[in-house]
Amino acid sequence: MSGFVTLLGAGPGDPDLLTRRGLKRLAEADLVLYDALVCPELLDEAPRARKFFVGKRSKNHSVDQKTTETLMVRYAREGQRVVRLKCGDPYVFGRGGEEALILAREGIPFEVVPGVSSCIAAPQAAGIPVTHRGEASAFLCATGHDLDNFRSLMAGVRPGALTLVVLMGYRRRREIATSLIGLGWDEETPAALIAGATHSSQEVIRTDLVTLGTVNVEGEEAVTLVVGSVVAVGDLIAGREFHPATVAMGGR
Amino acid sequence: MSGFVTLLGAGPGDPDLLTRRGLKRLAEADLVLYDALVCPELLDEAPRARKFFVGKRSKNHSVDQKTTETLMVRYAREGQRVVRLKCGDPYVFGRGGEEALILAREGIPFEVVPGVSSCIAAPQAAGIPVTHRGEASAFLCATGHDLDNFRSLMAGVRPGALTLVVLMGYRRRREIATSLIGLGWDEETPAALIAGATHSSQEVIRTDLVTLGTVNVEGEEAVTLVVGSVVAVGDLIAGREFHPATVAMGGR
Repeated sequence: MSGFVTLLGAGPGDPDLLTRRGLKRLAEADLVLYDALVCPELLDEAPRARKFFVGKRSKNHSVDQKTTETLMVRYAREGQRVVRLKCGDPYVFGRGGEEALILAREGIPFEVVPGVSSCIAAPQAAGIPVTHRGEASAFLCATGHDLDNFRSLMAGVRPGALTLVVLMGYRRRREIATSLIGLGWDEETPAALIAGATHSSQEVIRTDLVTLGTVNVEGEEAVTLVVGSVVAVGDLIAGREFHPATVAMGGR
Repeated sequence: MSGFVTLLGAGPGDPDLLTRRGLKRLAEADLVLYDALVCPELLDEAPRARKFFVGKRSKNHSVDQKTTETLMVRYAREGQRVVRLKCGDPYVFGRGGEEALILAREGIPFEVVPGVSSCIAAPQAAGIPVTHRGEASAFLCATGHDLDNFRSLMAGVRPGALTLVVLMGYRRRREIATSLIGLGWDEETPAALIAGATHSSQEVIRTDLVTLGTVNVEGEEAVTLVVGSVVAVGDLIAGREFHPATVAMGGR
């Protein structure tokens, strides 16, 4: 049997938020190439597989993108079932499109299996619906990784017109908030910061745009920022949610 | 034991794209209130449950929102485990926020379980990454349900600045395309229409913005529109994907 590669979305964190197809692929995998922030429990779903960490840390690029691509191609050519396990969804800031292009070009059989994206699930874990009748009829998902790019993008968006979700924006939260206010966003726009969404360590800070830049949490890499009036809707929902798995059924 | 409500995201269509937590909740449900477009196979995952269709059809609102809310509250109060099964993710144009507010106000224990959203997974099923280095560093997800609202929203967004994903826009595709061109979007911007994404009936049409308004598919309610240069990236990926489940392992 020939090998193949599955670009697999791990979801936002909680291992129960992986899809059934994702679980099947992990169960049958020979090799898992996983990113930083992938929940260790998920790796237990791949008992047959060797597991290589290919994540990028903010200040320490332990494995570069080229190496990851080379590993995928080499092991698939050797006949292995390779899972490239990526946080959230592979096609939302995950370089999944680039990896798919490489695999297509090299003639390696591959598939993409979506995951629950943090851009929706992280706000949701804090009670916040990214769309809500009368509050936001659209949401925009951007990255805070490249600040110039972010500023240029947001200069083209009418302030307050939609819910803004920023992934990988924690380290630049001050500049992000300042940029938005400079572009005309109201300082009092509700804003939230969600760290480690859906993990047991989840931390949520509810604030407003002018204060967003000054708040601090642990675990900067898994932080999602949300800006918009839907954050106030979330205030009415958060904390009222019940977790039946932990209360009534045992074991999430 | 007291009853509770799970607002559950069914994902884009393929039953294998439900999360593990979603499968657990269906398995234990006493009652499933499900929308139009929910895959019938998913209902088989809830063998204990009675199943009520509470979907809205475009021209025939068989069950109104108020009735759905009343049913959730009543049956949870009677001690039942109620699953409110919604296409995609509950907080992306699913009125999930409204339903959560009702449940919070009524003091009904509830939780929200995310699903893979069509706004990312439908383009992906056509090979299209919503973000891609050098092409799009952000995506905007809007609904085409209310055309005036759509026009007003898009008037505040610089043409071509990001990937645009429109859910529930098929019936207004002509007006959507015309509006965008009127706002300065290039007529030749790559565009795609994905019907029944991830279902066996999936149909993809790749075109450009000026032609988008004239193309026709079946199943208008489950159509996703994508506009942006990433559609051209998808042209290099689509059709090269392999589906190991159907080829090598049997049974998706």
